[in-house]
Amino acid sequence: MPEDFRTVTVELPELGQDQVRVANAFLSVDPYMRGRMNDAESYVAPFALDATMTGGAVGQVVASTSADVPVGATVTHDLGWRDVAQGDAGQFRVVDDGVPLSAYLGVLGLTGFTAHLGLLQIAQMRPGDVVFVSGAAGAVGSVVGQIARLKGASRVIGSAGSPEKVALVQERYGFDTAFDYKDGHVYRQLRAAAPDGIDVYFDNVGGAHLEAAIGTLNRDGRVALCGAISGYNDTEAQPGPRNLARIIQQGLMLRGFTVPYHLQHYPAFLADMREWFSSGQVAYDETVVDGLDHAVDAFLAMMRGETTGKTVVRL
Amino acid sequence: MPEDFRTVTVELPELGQDQVRVANAFLSVDPYMRGRMNDAESYVAPFALDATMTGGAVGQVVASTSADVPVGATVTHDLGWRDVAQGDAGQFRVVDDGVPLSAYLGVLGLTGFTAHLGLLQIAQMRPGDVVFVSGAAGAVGSVVGQIARLKGASRVIGSAGSPEKVALVQERYGFDTAFDYKDGHVYRQLRAAAPDGIDVYFDNVGGAHLEAAIGTLNRDGRVALCGAISGYNDTEAQPGPRNLARIIQQGLMLRGFTVPYHLQHYPAFLADMREWFSSGQVAYDETVVDGLDHAVDAFLAMMRGETTGKTVVRL
Repeated sequence: MPEDFRTVTVELPELGQDQVRVANAFLSVDPYMRGRMNDAESYVAPFALDATMTGGAVGQVVASTSADVPVGATVTHDLGWRDVAQGDAGQFRVVDDGVPLSAYLGVLGLTGFTAHLGLLQIAQMRPGDVVFVSGAAGAVGSVVGQIARLKGASRVIGSAGSPEKVALVQERYGFDTAFDYKDGHVYRQLRAAAPDGIDVYFDNVGGAHLEAAIGTLNRDGRVALCGAISGYNDTEAQPGPRNLARIIQQGLMLRGFTVPYHLQHYPAFLADMREWFSSGQVAYDETVVDGLDHAVDAFLAMMRGETTGKTVVRL
Repeated sequence: MPEDFRTVTVELPELGQDQVRVANAFLSVDPYMRGRMNDAESYVAPFALDATMTGGAVGQVVASTSADVPVGATVTHDLGWRDVAQGDAGQFRVVDDGVPLSAYLGVLGLTGFTAHLGLLQIAQMRPGDVVFVSGAAGAVGSVVGQIARLKGASRVIGSAGSPEKVALVQERYGFDTAFDYKDGHVYRQLRAAAPDGIDVYFDNVGGAHLEAAIGTLNRDGRVALCGAISGYNDTEAQPGPRNLARIIQQGLMLRGFTVPYHLQHYPAFLADMREWFSSGQVAYDETVVDGLDHAVDAFLAMMRGETTGKTVVRL
């Protein structure tokens, strides 16, 4: 709820040795932040009450006592929802400024890396695989489908939550087919889209989507469990899929992942994505919301499925 | 039900070219057979009504037209519940006769291979791992725990269904600790047995055991899904674990398997197990039932959890 957030103004201290001050240009708004708003065990510590929302951001250095991170450099960092970020130079990564800055929060940042890592390292997609992606109009899902195609998937299927999103997924992101999961039974729609079954499922959603995918996976099928947005607001845990026996029968593999534990694969991602992005092989969309005061609205709109592509806040 | 089975006497044809006739000594009775009694998709085709129960057997060749499989050889085969098996020589595998014949149906056969494959290849157990095994007094489970110890697990925990079985698991099979799952909440008992969590879970049971294991697995934990005996007689599918979100948070991997798709790992198993078995490093128990007429009783007793170790029928 918006009233659960507030904006505060603080006075910044002088820069210490080897520190920088950055004027943020864009802040990132991501679904994983929802998990941190529960006071429960998760893969990242819960946000503390009355602390600043951390998260990805990109901006320009406006003051510096560090030779490695000079004034004028474009940097990314994880210091979150604030207009000016300040701290030790080691917290900031200098990036090329030849691309739109906000791309460093999306296709060239956490979003793109999540897609690449989950599809290729976790689900071990191989050329010829039939790939199913839920949340296919979303920031991560739209990139997953495009990487699948670029890496030789034989068929790429997506699900999304409105006719407009389904059209976007097929026409702009190049999925072979897509369906509106609100249109009917997910399993039946998936079966119709994949008459010969699927080999890989990239799960952004959980719930009925996961059960449908398990029911449709071919022998040796693989699932990358990335998110379970369908259950993020549940106040009690929902039961899992009823068809787990099929994991044994079909020799399936399900694997969960979060980015911070797989940073060794980041260079491989960046090499692939820089080439694809600069040569225009990856279509990439953003929902841009202006002003720090609207960061909370942007986050809530994203969680309600009202945004398309990567959601960022422009300062 | 016993009345669903019947024994028939048939006249055997003369041996054709390159065929053998085998007097069976022992027949194997295995939980996987239950799945084949449902008329539903599974990893092996359903048994046909009025056809012989297939399955593992071991015996001696009593007639042969094959140079490779001569009279007197000890052979294993999959022709199942019959006193005499006959067919092409290629269906029979000649084995050493230096060990008790029934071991080829158990610790040196499907049972032992299932344990070795699931623990080492599927769950990728590493030295130092804390390993949890359900059905630990069973044919597969008892061997899993012993292999874990032989391969350097730091702690091996088992669950079983009676105080007698718990004692057997600890005293004879050398598990560090074990609990009776009928004694109380599985998760609470597992947590008490594994205060620092577990790294590997070998699942013979499914249901509440799987949920408890997911709740207890440490980061990068791995599950080999081998069986789900808790649900074999359910007439409708039960919901899965409520804590699947933990698979993402902890980076867990769940993988199902069945032996026929992993035969490339059989030589590695046999090399390990021959050495361990012949040097007395693996304790191995059988429930022996006499007579083909009692094969059904043996199967049903096993499914009710009344047998210990590997169940075989002696002819």
